[in-house]
Amino acid sequence: MSYEAFKGIVDRYVEAFDKGDETIIRDIYADDAVLEDPVGSDVKQGIEAIVEFYRQGFASGAKLKLTQPVRVAGNTVAFAFDVVLDDMTISPIDVFEINGDGKIQSMKAYWGPENIQS
Amino acid sequence: MSYEAFKGIVDRYVEAFDKGDETIIRDIYADDAVLEDPVGSDVKQGIEAIVEFYRQGFASGAKLKLTQPVRVAGNTVAFAFDVVLDDMTISPIDVFEINGDGKIQSMKAYWGPENIQS
Repeated sequence: MSYEAFKGIVDRYVEAFDKGDETIIRDIYADDAVLEDPVGSDVKQGIEAIVEFYRQGFASGAKLKLTQPVRVAGNTVAFAFDVVLDDMTISPIDVFEINGDGKIQSMKAYWGPENIQS
Repeated sequence: MSYEAFKGIVDRYVEAFDKGDETIIRDIYADDAVLEDPVGSDVKQGIEAIVEFYRQGFASGAKLKLTQPVRVAGNTVAFAFDVVLDDMTISPIDVFEINGDGKIQSMKAYWGPENIQS
């Protein structure tokens, strides 16, 4: 998979928040994907649990803004970004593992209280 | 472990490159740690293979400069930085998993050709 293909997944991820569109989430994630956001919290398993997680994010009105170029390595893409909310901004680093079908198999979000600005 | 303790490990990592000091590497890594830099390349297993990897990095004169605040989540710390060399700059995102003894158990570096500027 090319750098552009990995970057395209991240771009669609940002678009999903822009549009509040869960069909994009269903398209970019594998059905049996796992999500850990933030790392250290309960892991969401499977697309329905993952979609429910994003529904809550979309309902908050969160928008995403990349703050540096994405990093593509092996079957992964890592990227730093801001989650912009009305009253605060959270600045995670996410890592997506992409499977052979070009879908997100695993998502880990690295952020903590020190990465929240209000 | 506190945010400051996780950040302190990253600060010592930067210091190791500043000083070219492998004793710092031996101090911050677990003896049975694993290192994958970049992700998708051969994994280095154990402290001797890891020290040898950094010896080559130190010999190149590489210096590290954090480009954003570190992210601490669970037992991990993720951070974006520049590796500054004479003729180029590489911009990885690294993730350290820290064990119960406060040592780096696993290191993964996310970067590819698109993250090199010369």
